[in-house]
Amino acid sequence: MKYPKHLLTLIQSLTRLPGVGNKTAERYAFQMLTWEKKGLQEMASIIGEIKDKLCNCPECGCLIDENHCPFCQNARKEAGKICVVATAKDVFAIENIGDYYGFYHVLGGLLSPMEGITPDLLTIEKLLERVQQHHIQEVVVALDSTLEGDATALFLKKVLTPLNVNVSRLAFGLPMGSSLDYIDNNTLARAFSARSSF
Amino acid sequence: MKYPKHLLTLIQSLTRLPGVGNKTAERYAFQMLTWEKKGLQEMASIIGEIKDKLCNCPECGCLIDENHCPFCQNARKEAGKICVVATAKDVFAIENIGDYYGFYHVLGGLLSPMEGITPDLLTIEKLLERVQQHHIQEVVVALDSTLEGDATALFLKKVLTPLNVNVSRLAFGLPMGSSLDYIDNNTLARAFSARSSF
Repeated sequence: MKYPKHLLTLIQSLTRLPGVGNKTAERYAFQMLTWEKKGLQEMASIIGEIKDKLCNCPECGCLIDENHCPFCQNARKEAGKICVVATAKDVFAIENIGDYYGFYHVLGGLLSPMEGITPDLLTIEKLLERVQQHHIQEVVVALDSTLEGDATALFLKKVLTPLNVNVSRLAFGLPMGSSLDYIDNNTLARAFSARSSF
Repeated sequence: MKYPKHLLTLIQSLTRLPGVGNKTAERYAFQMLTWEKKGLQEMASIIGEIKDKLCNCPECGCLIDENHCPFCQNARKEAGKICVVATAKDVFAIENIGDYYGFYHVLGGLLSPMEGITPDLLTIEKLLERVQQHHIQEVVVALDSTLEGDATALFLKKVLTPLNVNVSRLAFGLPMGSSLDYIDNNTLARAFSARSSF
């Protein structure tokens, strides 16, 4: 005995969410069956309207829901800085620190020859344009500390150097609240060599 | 800096799913932002149509997507039996065994004075009607082995006894593949007292 057809369709559709397998999708689906029609239609219209109500700023690539991008406005105090991130989500992580007031630039991914992601698939051309246009003094490279992140950071360094800007990268070291017991060797080595007096 | 408004709405909507907190909802939402408009609208219409395409059989309470209920048809071989479950989902679990061909009856919950779930909120009246109407010989009570499940089973036993039917309940004992080391005392005691020769 199989599930009714529409229930199967629903379950299959839910498995498209990241980390959601069949079991979890079933749990979600059966929960949704207990909701009111109104609640279901609300969620349906929210999902259906995503592409109409949210877009990426054509300039910096940040996720915005209005016609003007709050990240691109000239009032950004530290306008001499631009922070390069891989995805639009990263922008919100940095905004949450509440410490940075410069521009952003979303690359749209990280270089990865294995996955066929070459420089022309990222918004690197646009970044170079913006650095010159806004008279940027410092490019903060805020990328993952992975192989792809390192490769992308080095590539950016190479193409940005001729433009005569400072290129900096986030510090590597111990995460806050960590115990030396559990830190991997590479992190410990980086933290050791970058030690500072206090 | 907060998320764009529609993204917040989407995240909030996704937290209605069981076990989905803010972090998971964010992860789902950002993944959905990468989907094509077509895929999003597909999911939206699937969710919006749930109540139109799926319903509960007015007779047995099973979840069905057509006008006739496959669980209620008279061709069900073991028509002298009716299996009482708490929710429509349980029906599929029992169908998956592939061993039972009688009727089903979905109670719609379990008795729980603490949560104000009294017998009149469950479909017990309807069950008694159906037992008489279909000349049922055995009522298989397939409820959770919890306090609420026990209470409901005992209540069913009490109201079914005058109708002169057998009332049986699922066996308690060791789950398959379990190790005695990890079995709780109550289960072990039940399994011990219900031991059988083999």
